[in-house]
Amino acid sequence: MTRALRFPLAVSIGDPAGIGPEVIAKCWDSREAFSLPLFAAIGDPRSIAAVWDGPIELIDDPRQADSAFDYGLPLIQINTPQADIPGHPSIAGAHASLDSLEIAVGLARSGSAAAVVTGPIAKEQLYAIGFQHPGQTEFVAERCGIAPGNVAMMLAGPTLRTVPVTTHLPLAAVPSQLSSTLIESRGRTVLRGLQRNFGIVEPRLAVSGLNPHSGEGGELGREEIDLIGPAIAALAAEGWLVTGPYPADTMFHASARAHYDAALCMYHDQALIPIKALHFEDAVNVTLGLPIVRTAPDHGTAFDIAGQDRADPRPMAAAIRMAAENAAQRADAA
Amino acid sequence: MTRALRFPLAVSIGDPAGIGPEVIAKCWDSREAFSLPLFAAIGDPRSIAAVWDGPIELIDDPRQADSAFDYGLPLIQINTPQADIPGHPSIAGAHASLDSLEIAVGLARSGSAAAVVTGPIAKEQLYAIGFQHPGQTEFVAERCGIAPGNVAMMLAGPTLRTVPVTTHLPLAAVPSQLSSTLIESRGRTVLRGLQRNFGIVEPRLAVSGLNPHSGEGGELGREEIDLIGPAIAALAAEGWLVTGPYPADTMFHASARAHYDAALCMYHDQALIPIKALHFEDAVNVTLGLPIVRTAPDHGTAFDIAGQDRADPRPMAAAIRMAAENAAQRADAA
Repeated sequence: MTRALRFPLAVSIGDPAGIGPEVIAKCWDSREAFSLPLFAAIGDPRSIAAVWDGPIELIDDPRQADSAFDYGLPLIQINTPQADIPGHPSIAGAHASLDSLEIAVGLARSGSAAAVVTGPIAKEQLYAIGFQHPGQTEFVAERCGIAPGNVAMMLAGPTLRTVPVTTHLPLAAVPSQLSSTLIESRGRTVLRGLQRNFGIVEPRLAVSGLNPHSGEGGELGREEIDLIGPAIAALAAEGWLVTGPYPADTMFHASARAHYDAALCMYHDQALIPIKALHFEDAVNVTLGLPIVRTAPDHGTAFDIAGQDRADPRPMAAAIRMAAENAAQRADAA
Repeated sequence: MTRALRFPLAVSIGDPAGIGPEVIAKCWDSREAFSLPLFAAIGDPRSIAAVWDGPIELIDDPRQADSAFDYGLPLIQINTPQADIPGHPSIAGAHASLDSLEIAVGLARSGSAAAVVTGPIAKEQLYAIGFQHPGQTEFVAERCGIAPGNVAMMLAGPTLRTVPVTTHLPLAAVPSQLSSTLIESRGRTVLRGLQRNFGIVEPRLAVSGLNPHSGEGGELGREEIDLIGPAIAALAAEGWLVTGPYPADTMFHASARAHYDAALCMYHDQALIPIKALHFEDAVNVTLGLPIVRTAPDHGTAFDIAGQDRADPRPMAAAIRMAAENAAQRADAA
């Protein structure tokens, strides 16, 4: 799998005071054990050097990553006024994380990078410097000219893929935010994403109910009848293989998972509880609906353990591997 | 472990047209492979014979189960006017399932049975004959003189135990039904249950948040701050080891699970999604807060596969084993 792509992946380091620099460096260290493809990080070399003693190869252009990769971690340099201390996020670090993200997306947009993998950012610091998106997903969507409502956040692990229809909302707001249109639109994005990113010609989508026992025929809530059922019917009428609504608690055991390629869930925890219970170390956040491939490890900055050599690089390695697989799939199909 | 208890377990067969008779008979068949203790079923022998060719030993009193158990499935007979056809629930079957449940609970209440294990019932049929409880749990509670609000439904598997604070409610009703008092009361029932049924002297309870990321400091909902936090503080002030509220999506991976004995969840699917994703074949429904031990397999009547020799007896076997373990634990402590 390594180096099958024409261009390397661009990996933004995220907040320099978080675990991003450490897990990216560890991925380069273990690039063979993790079967990783060619990638280049984007950030301040001091942020990497603060947590890792390995070799860094400064490059100006992703095309140089190929010759550099055997000798050190290829790094496209960002200069920040001061280096961050691991575990201590700062305004300067927020600027660096945003610059890194912006450059990584630009490289993928221009075709110089095969895909973007984003390291974890700290929203609080970003908001302090004027960042106005709920998260990196929405930022990337905007930079790609896609309305944030038209992308879908997929959590993909080895035996399960889930997508929440609604994301960062109070639970009490979920029922009023759900609509047939939204479920249908999100479902379509997921189905197309399964084709484009995963090469599944006839993707099978299982849709969850909202209520316990999927509403028990209306006894425990009517959203299944009024909203979810019609959305499923509309997608099925277009020829997609869409089934449900299923009781969410019996959708995620092994024999149930064998019947679908992705589960469309109604809210954040309904999608994230099963994927993290089953695939905590290797679930990848994949943004579907973009003109580029973008993945991310499914964890945060973890400031509490930054700089202590305790961060687990497996989620970042899984994100890098999946970005390459998705990009190769898209290149094959093009 | 077999026959460590002075009295056998009483196993109600549930709806005779469901898979209850089959899985109970299969448990007796595989009693050694499943390491099962002495138990007696309660039902119409024709319901067993309709789905199983093995030997049935009719008994009048649970005390006869001991001498009968080696020769056949010990059965306390209920006479129904007509035998049910597997997969075809009827009013007569509903009466039989209620009689079976009533007798099983009575035997445990009187001390003639060490515990009750309940087979799956069909609520629709039971409602048609005047049953007025949301489920068997509430019926058993009432027969034991306990207010239904004072019992807790635990789902217990080999590496995880979860308890929902609210159960069979539309999701939209969950936020308004939650209160500090309810969370605190349910938490106390679980903590005492971990002591009484599971012999954990200093039980550790992890409490989930309601909202994504546990509300993110109030940004995504205030229930964590207004309701859940105060309930945790109140329990901790009594000396219990209670922590949280935790983001529900990161509570259920293996290393997180190692830090608590049970997870108290805010709603049905938050508790049931992880337990069924991880332990679909051996999660047991345990009612805490009762004077007797009551367990049940965590599945329904499955009328669609009844009588086809396709039902998996492992959940019933797990329920029987756990009932015996819980009862032995209580007997040791008494």
